[in-house]
Amino acid sequence: MTAITLLTDFGTADYFVGAMKGVILSINPEAVIADITHEIPAQDVAAGAFQLLAAYATFPTGTIHVAVVDPGVGSERRPIVVNAGGYFFVGPDNGIFTYVYEREPAFEVTHVTETRYFRHPVSTTFHGRDIFAPVAAALSTRIDLSSLGTRISDPIRLSTLTGPQVIHIDHFGNLITNIRCDSFEEGTALSLNGRVITEFRRFFGEQVGNAGEPFMIWGSAGFLEIAVNGDSAAGVLGVKRGDEVKTQE
Amino acid sequence: MTAITLLTDFGTADYFVGAMKGVILSINPEAVIADITHEIPAQDVAAGAFQLLAAYATFPTGTIHVAVVDPGVGSERRPIVVNAGGYFFVGPDNGIFTYVYEREPAFEVTHVTETRYFRHPVSTTFHGRDIFAPVAAALSTRIDLSSLGTRISDPIRLSTLTGPQVIHIDHFGNLITNIRCDSFEEGTALSLNGRVITEFRRFFGEQVGNAGEPFMIWGSAGFLEIAVNGDSAAGVLGVKRGDEVKTQE
Amino acid sequence: MTAITLLTDFGTADYFVGAMKGVILSINPEAVIADITHEIPAQDVAAGAFQLLAAYATFPTGTIHVAVVDPGVGSERRPIVVNAGGYFFVGPDNGIFTYVYEREPAFEVTHVTETRYFRHPVSTTFHGRDIFAPVAAALSTRIDLSSLGTRISDPIRLSTLTGPQVIHIDHFGNLITNIRCDSFEEGTALSLNGRVITEFRRFFGEQVGNAGEPFMIWGSAGFLEIAVNGDSAAGVLGVKRGDEVKTQE
Repeated sequence: MTAITLLTDFGTADYFVGAMKGVILSINPEAVIADITHEIPAQDVAAGAFQLLAAYATFPTGTIHVAVVDPGVGSERRPIVVNAGGYFFVGPDNGIFTYVYEREPAFEVTHVTETRYFRHPVSTTFHGRDIFAPVAAALSTRIDLSSLGTRISDPIRLSTLTGPQVIHIDHFGNLITNIRCDSFEEGTALSLNGRVITEFRRFFGEQVGNAGEPFMIWGSAGFLEIAVNGDSAAGVLGVKRGDEVKTQE
Repeated sequence: MTAITLLTDFGTADYFVGAMKGVILSINPEAVIADITHEIPAQDVAAGAFQLLAAYATFPTGTIHVAVVDPGVGSERRPIVVNAGGYFFVGPDNGIFTYVYEREPAFEVTHVTETRYFRHPVSTTFHGRDIFAPVAAALSTRIDLSSLGTRISDPIRLSTLTGPQVIHIDHFGNLITNIRCDSFEEGTALSLNGRVITEFRRFFGEQVGNAGEPFMIWGSAGFLEIAVNGDSAAGVLGVKRGDEVKTQE
Repeated sequence: MTAITLLTDFGTADYFVGAMKGVILSINPEAVIADITHEIPAQDVAAGAFQLLAAYATFPTGTIHVAVVDPGVGSERRPIVVNAGGYFFVGPDNGIFTYVYEREPAFEVTHVTETRYFRHPVSTTFHGRDIFAPVAAALSTRIDLSSLGTRISDPIRLSTLTGPQVIHIDHFGNLITNIRCDSFEEGTALSLNGRVITEFRRFFGEQVGNAGEPFMIWGSAGFLEIAVNGDSAAGVLGVKRGDEVKTQE
């Protein structure tokens, strides 16, 4: 059995995700399909890239991750398959796999040109159903990657993240930075949007400091996060994605 | 393996969908269950009918589609199984399968009367769990359709859609009409709610015309749609489902 | 095949639920995973307990139910496995299994102490991924319960529900009480928040009484519910969870 995961900005109110699952099961009835999320904000490639980063390595080796946040659907942007870290990633070449390239440097990217693996007629508005789902399903039947198209070396990446910053804001309003455990010493203070944060907690429920006071915590995705107990750190601090984080030693 | 899909207006905040899955797996642990959507607006049979239309044929032949948008739950409305186009459809006889009847004219409808296939006691408020899920699961174990009840020839249909109109408004505010590719010539102008639309695009990102200007596009469900790039066409045009679409040649 | 269900307050916008599924499939690729709901209000253990109660027994015997509404994540609260009624329940020891203990009096509770079944490193913020999902997956591979930890006899329960009250408010605003069929005679009047309710209906669509008038009905979870046709009973009556229900004979 091969697992295929789905991550999109389609929401779950329409038939879109169901249609992708139908296409996959029509090609490989044995595929095990798991949703990562379908609530990526519309066309927000960076948010999709983060959620994929945080989830992909929990799945078994060989899993095929389909990620469709695709503002360029119908245009000339390339459909690609990335082979990295023992996983396959299927989606548009628009930077959604940027973090995968960073974390799995021995990656290989294939531009999918063999239209016989697509669902026909290929619509101009729903490549999730007509290109990405059928290509993922074909991969799950163990076809050779080279039969899908040609190797490329210039996949698109999101513009380089220079310096510490907020790369994601989660469901609870927690701020996820791009600061990793190996590059941060606990005890260091941070500054965001003019506010200095000195408190560090081991877990959310730990009772130290004042209620409503922002604190640092190691987040579950492996990055330093800023949180406020029982409140949205993004709201309390007035911070948005991309905002700079200053470290003060 | 047989796939069973679920489409309801139950939302996903309560245990309702989980309970349907539990009942199915209790009868057939090998069933593969896929959600189409559970966010049909409450009791909106027409919206459910559209989403089912757009998704059902992507699934493998033999798939059992369960559709429960059921304002008449507990009343005398008939539970039915429709056999059409190589698929089974299980749900209330209230018009939710109208588009299936139109697209698969060689359909057959069975009124499910054999209560031994139900979950007992049968509640008066949750036939999704007590009637439709167990009947679908029984079908997936290859029981004969004739053992479920009696053939009927008068299933309920939604009132005939006379003339071109908006039959659905999707997640993004796009207006889906009932105009099919084979009955529309590109270049024709449309009029909705007093506004004339002349622009036609091949895909959403195509850069023609002014921002905020409505345009026509072939939608992924096979119908002509009206969209506005980066905005809700329903909002921009002040259009709701059922509104007339005039064609101007 | 073994079914594993997931019930959390994580929402579906983030990667959290996807990561739990990845961990489970990495340990047992044959596991069948079904969502109950992920929209329990944040940290609302009582709401999680109700939804679990209403769904668990629809699943096949042997199913492993994972329930993670866990305000104490990272603290010393115990991870437990409950063996009750032919099912396993995996989650924090914070009262989320209170109704299971009430309904399945021959239950056994194991405090999970064998950290070799956890995912390492164990984060302090996401035990759903690092403790509860891998323990559930290990159970699904038929390991012996005694290998997970030590039997305990003092699991935490939600404070005793004394007297009839509203224990849940569903998606539609219906009020679910803790009054069971065997302890209530139809014809009895109820009083909630100063309003007397005398009407009883067999099903929602039954046309008796005035529109907007609250009525009693046997709900699908086996409890007496208060509903208003086409409206929210909670809104109409100004009632919240925990509010007292008086019976008047």
